[in-house]
Amino acid sequence: MRKERGLLIVLSGPSGVGKGTVRKELFSQPDTNYEYSISMTTRKAREGEVDGVDYFFKDKEDFEVLIEQGKLLEYAQYVGNYYGTPIDYVNQTLDAGRDVFLEIEVQGATQIREKVPDGLFIFLAPPSLSELQSRLVGRGTETEDVIANRIAAANKELEMMNLYDYVVENDEVTLACDRINSIVVAEHCRRERVEKQYLAMLKGE
Amino acid sequence: MRKERGLLIVLSGPSGVGKGTVRKELFSQPDTNYEYSISMTTRKAREGEVDGVDYFFKDKEDFEVLIEQGKLLEYAQYVGNYYGTPIDYVNQTLDAGRDVFLEIEVQGATQIREKVPDGLFIFLAPPSLSELQSRLVGRGTETEDVIANRIAAANKELEMMNLYDYVVENDEVTLACDRINSIVVAEHCRRERVEKQYLAMLKGE
Repeated sequence: MRKERGLLIVLSGPSGVGKGTVRKELFSQPDTNYEYSISMTTRKAREGEVDGVDYFFKDKEDFEVLIEQGKLLEYAQYVGNYYGTPIDYVNQTLDAGRDVFLEIEVQGATQIREKVPDGLFIFLAPPSLSELQSRLVGRGTETEDVIANRIAAANKELEMMNLYDYVVENDEVTLACDRINSIVVAEHCRRERVEKQYLAMLKGE
Repeated sequence: MRKERGLLIVLSGPSGVGKGTVRKELFSQPDTNYEYSISMTTRKAREGEVDGVDYFFKDKEDFEVLIEQGKLLEYAQYVGNYYGTPIDYVNQTLDAGRDVFLEIEVQGATQIREKVPDGLFIFLAPPSLSELQSRLVGRGTETEDVIANRIAAANKELEMMNLYDYVVENDEVTLACDRINSIVVAEHCRRERVEKQYLAMLKGE
């Protein structure tokens, strides 16, 4: 049977929400079946880091050539070094029928959405949703300033999530992981995907 | 917090695929959190059947009035009796924020799709997909007639699934149930749904 192309799973969300913790928990589960997207960087490898495992290490000139050639799904500069997601590694893994998992800042996710509109974009939200109302109305103990700040924060989150397909609340790390896994299972069952496989097989591909 | 409206989950598929078995397994799981949609029928209650639990029992005249009033999501006649899905029960349960689960023949599902376009339509498929290719090409032992019949069956399935949002293969009942549960979890995480809750709360609803 021809292998279905993998899904590009992009997990992002506001800084401090716990993206890294959720990603580590996902990849520590024995049945997790995603490939972690290896980033490319111009910073020097640290003791014990292996090229092609921890990062793809490049010098600045090579990195800038790749930027010019459009070979990065997204990139950013941080403390004088480039960090980015190499497009070829992602595409090769997807073509091999493996799902690729990316945990990334919102700016990077925005760049990827433009290039891979059919990716699976998951917004990790603080557990504010279920607590929002009680916190908004308070118990008569909150000042108006505090309430106004909370409304502003909620509005900002709402604005950020607009780009995403799914919103997962990070109330508990294991629950958040379960939801992410469910979303991936569901996406593989989407009728359009299954239909494509049927058609490919009927054509004898 | 204002309760989010429940999802209408419609499980259907070709006859003989095992819809009833999957539904029974789902409702035997202790953590299943769906309301089973109780059907309405004009057939007489059997020993031990309770009105409002097993079925809503109605006489023929009342049933036909409900049909005329558009009070049935779908209905069909079978061995001289009407069977249908009462719309009020479904709506009341959804409004209470509970997901409603319906297991139904494809004709009924088609009627419901027209009335509830935002329902969650899941097609239960025979485990043919993964076996289709090997069966199609056979091992040189199949006659051309047999192969032609299989292609025709696959094409018919493809045509039927066109109405649905998801396709779940019934290779193993427990796996099929896991996939259905994942689809429901994922749908509850869809950004549009979460966004609505945020907005409702910010408006103080």
